[in-house]
Amino acid sequence: MITIEKLKRDLNSVREQSPVIHNITNYVVMNNTANALLAIGASPVMAHSVDEIKDMVGIASALVLNIGTLDKNWVESMLLAGSIAQEKGIPIVLDPVGAGATKYRTEVSTLLIEKCRPTIIRGNASEIMALVNDSTTQTKGVDSRDSSDAALESAKLLAKQSGAVVVISGETDYITDGTNTKTVFNGNTMMARVTGMGCTATAIVAAFAAINKDTMQAATHAMAVMGVSGERAAANARGNGSLQTLFLDELYNLSDKELEKTLRIV
Amino acid sequence: MITIEKLKRDLNSVREQSPVIHNITNYVVMNNTANALLAIGASPVMAHSVDEIKDMVGIASALVLNIGTLDKNWVESMLLAGSIAQEKGIPIVLDPVGAGATKYRTEVSTLLIEKCRPTIIRGNASEIMALVNDSTTQTKGVDSRDSSDAALESAKLLAKQSGAVVVISGETDYITDGTNTKTVFNGNTMMARVTGMGCTATAIVAAFAAINKDTMQAATHAMAVMGVSGERAAANARGNGSLQTLFLDELYNLSDKELEKTLRIV
Amino acid sequence: MITIEKLKRDLNSVREQSPVIHNITNYVVMNNTANALLAIGASPVMAHSVDEIKDMVGIASALVLNIGTLDKNWVESMLLAGSIAQEKGIPIVLDPVGAGATKYRTEVSTLLIEKCRPTIIRGNASEIMALVNDSTTQTKGVDSRDSSDAALESAKLLAKQSGAVVVISGETDYITDGTNTKTVFNGNTMMARVTGMGCTATAIVAAFAAINKDTMQAATHAMAVMGVSGERAAANARGNGSLQTLFLDELYNLSDKELEKTLRIV
Repeated sequence: MITIEKLKRDLNSVREQSPVIHNITNYVVMNNTANALLAIGASPVMAHSVDEIKDMVGIASALVLNIGTLDKNWVESMLLAGSIAQEKGIPIVLDPVGAGATKYRTEVSTLLIEKCRPTIIRGNASEIMALVNDSTTQTKGVDSRDSSDAALESAKLLAKQSGAVVVISGETDYITDGTNTKTVFNGNTMMARVTGMGCTATAIVAAFAAINKDTMQAATHAMAVMGVSGERAAANARGNGSLQTLFLDELYNLSDKELEKTLRIV
Repeated sequence: MITIEKLKRDLNSVREQSPVIHNITNYVVMNNTANALLAIGASPVMAHSVDEIKDMVGIASALVLNIGTLDKNWVESMLLAGSIAQEKGIPIVLDPVGAGATKYRTEVSTLLIEKCRPTIIRGNASEIMALVNDSTTQTKGVDSRDSSDAALESAKLLAKQSGAVVVISGETDYITDGTNTKTVFNGNTMMARVTGMGCTATAIVAAFAAINKDTMQAATHAMAVMGVSGERAAANARGNGSLQTLFLDELYNLSDKELEKTLRIV
Repeated sequence: MITIEKLKRDLNSVREQSPVIHNITNYVVMNNTANALLAIGASPVMAHSVDEIKDMVGIASALVLNIGTLDKNWVESMLLAGSIAQEKGIPIVLDPVGAGATKYRTEVSTLLIEKCRPTIIRGNASEIMALVNDSTTQTKGVDSRDSSDAALESAKLLAKQSGAVVVISGETDYITDGTNTKTVFNGNTMMARVTGMGCTATAIVAAFAAINKDTMQAATHAMAVMGVSGERAAANARGNGSLQTLFLDELYNLSDKELEKTLRIV
């Protein structure tokens, strides 16, 4: 069960342990993602060269694989990083950006799931649905067209098939291991208008997975922190420009008291 | 003729249709460009792998080719994307960043014009002049040294030669098809101090071209929206940091009333 | 000796001459770095293709080599750019991001020092120590674990070995040519929570080196401007989001009066 006490404990652990999170991620969000990890107290590393993957995974406490601007060289790096992370036993979080939008993204996501056995998969509703059923309606770009609710059944199936905890982010966030499901109601629809907010969620999930071996708990705590910070930031944002800035400030300052006051989770 | 009514109609169409804009663009501006497209209501996609270009252009309503941090692999992707966009009949907007600064950029821009037949070419004065006359004075970096006025004749010639509508952005923006020319007086010189503001203009031009087949109109509407938003943001900005943020907020919130009050166009 | 008059003169020179700074840098910080250079009045160029390196270095007044997201293709570009900059006699500033974190980064940094003979090397304490003694404790990611004080002796040794002025940035900044050392006390610990603040320092150092041939002076002036701007921005920042924005605004507006009031340098 998710309790506010365990959430506060984990947030505190991230800040105290400052886990190194190794990101092989996309060009669009590298800056935001790094800043979000710094805001929450983690220590981001971005590195993709096969010449240093082994050393970099070696100092990391979690690995993020994000296919947002993939090409074959980067996929090669991801596969290598994934295999080393598995050997080392650190959590791997996969973000299948745009799965369903192109055949290549769906295939690469499927390959990464098969070869890297991610601990957690986080996507929007369309992406998660694309990974279960290739014959589904094609995603419209990288933004989700499907509601989280519709995707929950796909998420449960994907969790069972892959052994990963699956996170669907959207207006409502679902976290499921196929059997148990947690629901986070926090957040604000304006967050979807900031590019890479989903990628940021993936990175924050990795930060929590790095310090808590209970994967369901870690993922739920991370999504709660995302939702609460986003909701608080949106309350003062005039547009997606200020939301991007205010969101980092909220993550940076998030207090136990604010968490308690704002959290809506089942 | 450009009327405020048509401009408001197009702004509304972008927001309602949320066209997918496929960007093959530079590393520096990917985040800003994506956020600007989200702010105006469009749906950005960044993808460059030849393994998915065909599928991604397939779901797009317009294509942006921006050579800001080009290398030969990316040029190959641009050529492929351009040929597919032509077949599909969606507008292509070329941003020849730094044309004239290096021989390579001038050559690649010329090649892309020849092979992809862009619908619209948007650059600063130096870039546009470099594309007409290779023997012109070399551009100083990627920032313009030439006034928009001096480049207008080059723009008209380029438009006639290429068949594209040519947009010169600067203190005054010109939009020309070689015969007719529109002039946008909105904007603020401080905008040149935010990196990638020109690249953002290119992306916004693509969003309007995606929903309006009258290319002169679409390009003019987009530059008007850029200028009005930039001018309004600059009024409250303390420096280029806050201008970048405020600009997105203005794009996000731009109302018909604000457009009417601020627009200066001929 | 560093005097406030010389610092003001150099700041003024950057703004008046607007030197072109060619950056071969990492994906994470390209946007910030470009904006910081624009804020201080310089003219940034980001370009990495071997097909245009020669032309781009040809129009530049200084070159930045930053290995933050290196791979073998980018290292090839850096070596080429370095050799051309040497021939042309413009300053080269090396940022050995993450040296010590992986063997590859340490090796590439060492290679770049050997082949490109940088004018200035700027790193955090861990990175500078890694370049002197490979058998040192491994860096934890790309963020420094060592205090600037402990690294000062390493910096002096590196300066003597390489012939470069070495800058250690941290809570206290040191600038040394191996014999003389300058110390900048300005700044704020919150700056370490904004990604790429060190990379920004490197770029600003390049801007000052471009307009002042006295390398010790140029590097010290640049670090003073960084520290004063960061300190002033931190005073009004709520978190790392607003700090990133406010920092650019401070750089943009920095006045002689503010410099005089805030500067703490020995």
